[in-house]
Amino acid sequence: MRKKFDELRGLYEEAAALGEARAVLAWDQRVTMPPGGAPGRARSMSALSRVVHSKATAPEIGRLIDETWDWAQAEGPDSFEAAYLRVLKRDYDRATKLPSAFVGESAAAASAAMSAWEAAKKNSDFSAFAPHLEKMVDIARRQAEYLAPGKPHYDTLLDLYEPGMRRAGLDPLLGALADGLKPVAAAIAERSAAVSDELMRGDFDERAQLALADEIVRELGFDFSKGRQDRSMHPFTTGFSLSDVRITTWTMRGWLPASIYASIHECGHALYAMGAPAEFELTPLADGAGLGVHESQSRFWENIVGRSRPFCEWLLPRLRKYFPGKFDRTSAEQLYSAVNKSGPSFIRVEADEVTYDMHIALRYRLETALIDGVLKAKDVPEAWNAGMKEYFGIVPGNDAEGALQDVHWSQGTIGYFPTYSLGNLMAGQLAEKMRADLPDMDGLIARGEFQPVLAWLRERIHRHGAMYFPADLMKKAVGKGPEAGPYIAYIKKKYSALYGF
Amino acid sequence: MRKKFDELRGLYEEAAALGEARAVLAWDQRVTMPPGGAPGRARSMSALSRVVHSKATAPEIGRLIDETWDWAQAEGPDSFEAAYLRVLKRDYDRATKLPSAFVGESAAAASAAMSAWEAAKKNSDFSAFAPHLEKMVDIARRQAEYLAPGKPHYDTLLDLYEPGMRRAGLDPLLGALADGLKPVAAAIAERSAAVSDELMRGDFDERAQLALADEIVRELGFDFSKGRQDRSMHPFTTGFSLSDVRITTWTMRGWLPASIYASIHECGHALYAMGAPAEFELTPLADGAGLGVHESQSRFWENIVGRSRPFCEWLLPRLRKYFPGKFDRTSAEQLYSAVNKSGPSFIRVEADEVTYDMHIALRYRLETALIDGVLKAKDVPEAWNAGMKEYFGIVPGNDAEGALQDVHWSQGTIGYFPTYSLGNLMAGQLAEKMRADLPDMDGLIARGEFQPVLAWLRERIHRHGAMYFPADLMKKAVGKGPEAGPYIAYIKKKYSALYGF
Repeated sequence: MRKKFDELRGLYEEAAALGEARAVLAWDQRVTMPPGGAPGRARSMSALSRVVHSKATAPEIGRLIDETWDWAQAEGPDSFEAAYLRVLKRDYDRATKLPSAFVGESAAAASAAMSAWEAAKKNSDFSAFAPHLEKMVDIARRQAEYLAPGKPHYDTLLDLYEPGMRRAGLDPLLGALADGLKPVAAAIAERSAAVSDELMRGDFDERAQLALADEIVRELGFDFSKGRQDRSMHPFTTGFSLSDVRITTWTMRGWLPASIYASIHECGHALYAMGAPAEFELTPLADGAGLGVHESQSRFWENIVGRSRPFCEWLLPRLRKYFPGKFDRTSAEQLYSAVNKSGPSFIRVEADEVTYDMHIALRYRLETALIDGVLKAKDVPEAWNAGMKEYFGIVPGNDAEGALQDVHWSQGTIGYFPTYSLGNLMAGQLAEKMRADLPDMDGLIARGEFQPVLAWLRERIHRHGAMYFPADLMKKAVGKGPEAGPYIAYIKKKYSALYGF
Repeated sequence: MRKKFDELRGLYEEAAALGEARAVLAWDQRVTMPPGGAPGRARSMSALSRVVHSKATAPEIGRLIDETWDWAQAEGPDSFEAAYLRVLKRDYDRATKLPSAFVGESAAAASAAMSAWEAAKKNSDFSAFAPHLEKMVDIARRQAEYLAPGKPHYDTLLDLYEPGMRRAGLDPLLGALADGLKPVAAAIAERSAAVSDELMRGDFDERAQLALADEIVRELGFDFSKGRQDRSMHPFTTGFSLSDVRITTWTMRGWLPASIYASIHECGHALYAMGAPAEFELTPLADGAGLGVHESQSRFWENIVGRSRPFCEWLLPRLRKYFPGKFDRTSAEQLYSAVNKSGPSFIRVEADEVTYDMHIALRYRLETALIDGVLKAKDVPEAWNAGMKEYFGIVPGNDAEGALQDVHWSQGTIGYFPTYSLGNLMAGQLAEKMRADLPDMDGLIARGEFQPVLAWLRERIHRHGAMYFPADLMKKAVGKGPEAGPYIAYIKKKYSALYGF
């Protein structure tokens, strides 16, 4: 049976190595490819995707999973073998349960919806996008039905991104989060003048921003012998193996936090991606436990570390070094204040720690209603604006800065947004536990001794790869499944001090 | 039959698109990959190579070539269809005639030989490499026998790189070249103090060198929307499609010509690679006619244009711009002299226009003797040193700067070196003809009007892709097959003026 398992691993490794090749092509496309390369790249990507799909859905894989399943279970539910098969079977089922005619139909619909969304956003005209959204919702429902016939569709979609999570478990979490954050946001709104981010606006040489970004992530623990950082249109992280993980950042000449916090955020993802044990290489366990846990790592470094008072102490001399003269009279306290200005906003990706999850709550409300069929695509803008009024007290002036701002729904990506909030609340839980384990956490950060922080995350989270469901991983790491309390407490304590309430 | 031809094209396109994907991985490996990526990349490359090989050697391709062959010939020998099948059949036969056990054996032997060569070169100890060279010569002979049973082995190997060329045709060409160049080199040796390259030595900011290199290739016609230039350990050119062609250069802080001429050289290759007609995309005709013709393009731009008197006039103000203060009192004449210093040298890749082909003549003499079995691997250093004495009047102090300097033979790459000299002499023929067609060629170059020069090469060479054998292409372009006369005349005229003899 061990021999069959090894045979299965060989088949998986072949498919995974080709999948890594595809990821290299995707990275190059977003980072280094000249514009003229686009048509050729589309051909290569499509040819390679067909090969990967065919290798990953080979009937032998299904047969070997079935044949080795009981043997692996006998090794124990927490054994490498059992976890390997559990994750592989999940991915294999997802890849094989969708009829190829449906895959073709949804790819074509998503491509049309993408173009329609781009045009609709440009013209700020939701009605031109509505039929496409209706179609993509229909496709998401049919996808869910193929994957888990008779099961609640939204649960099935959510599970694609957050394994094991169900709506019944998510509702109270996101509800508690929104309930906890709303009064903080309201208190801040009354004192918005108490904090200014003027310090971070100005004219910051972009080459210096990139050099600073490299220094920051190197100090946090990003190993440049096993990765690189580049610039791209939108920051992202990708990995081809445990020892080739790449991040990108962006720069805005007039707004310094853009590059700093994009780099720290992606570095958080990368440290997780680099942190699985070597024996998970080329196995389905090398990836993280789920998108929520992944986001907990990026947000932990970006916000809980990167936007902390001690981190600002560490950062300040570096700002002075890279931007001579600009921060000479700035104190760490002023810097801390400037990178933590909070307030209502229309655009999710620009939202701060306090308001971010309210954007997610709104999207969650709407996408569950769409899947349930109680909201029609054409009525989304009205529901959107009502939600904005309820959560933030503001209403977008047009659909481009309202219901059309995100690309996700146009691609049928429904069930994904909640993982952002799950990431935030898990980051809060991890921070609470870490602070108990490392009482001098603030001192470590202020002195730039990030190694113990990283080592704690490696031990509690990274080394487990995809061995466990996210909720079980959190139980192992902090003793409890996902809960909103620690994150809300963190936000309240931090922002009441910053804004004085 | 047209339908069968289209079916064949579809199969080829699939394999070619995957081959392009593999080329992207190889580029990344040499240009952007962090060191930690090596093991993962080896796996991806190997998995992808197996897929490409299997697609490119599919029996359907062989069947369709056979079935459409006569139909394509009926379209005329110069038709797209006939040329398509000729080149595809050549590549298909080469890929299918080697037994897979032999392919495995030679890959393993080449890998071992590479390691042995690296160690032997480091220790300057040829004897440690000799058994590996003997093995690689044996493998080259067996490869030739598989590809063309009963045919002279060296001819078969040569044909891999220079289609249609045979030793009987090459001997007189290389002989004439060496005979023509030797007296020039001798005359230069007597007057070596007449030319100094001190001007190009010093301390040149490497970022400025790269910016200058970008400006130069852009002005020559390299389209950055269809390509890019990076830095790598050794300069090279690669292309993934006609509109994604990438070059690399290198920089040496103390020797300015390194980056300038590497960039111009690779730009010459790239302009050829970008210059095939769009309808050749994803066909076997998109590549060049052969390595000699490819080298004729790189050498034409590097030497005949880039080391010309008018080019130095154009270059000088740019040197002043990128290296303020360094060239203020330099004249174009002095610059021209400094980039054309000639003299005997041990290392081929550092050799100048006059002596380069004598290095090739030596290698050609030795590799034909190895393949013929009249020279044993262990006796190579002695034969090498005798040849150096004969051609240059100098003998290397050790094997590292002698017979161990080049990697090629360790990889079984035999029959390749002559294409460098063929490139030089074809460049000489093209220059002679171009000068007749563009009487103001010097004026165009001095004014930086490179477009007519490029257009001439596009019309005479580039647009034909791999439609013709190199010799036939030259006949079309300049009215004659390869000959050494024009290159020798060019060298004599240029260097007698420079050195005053």
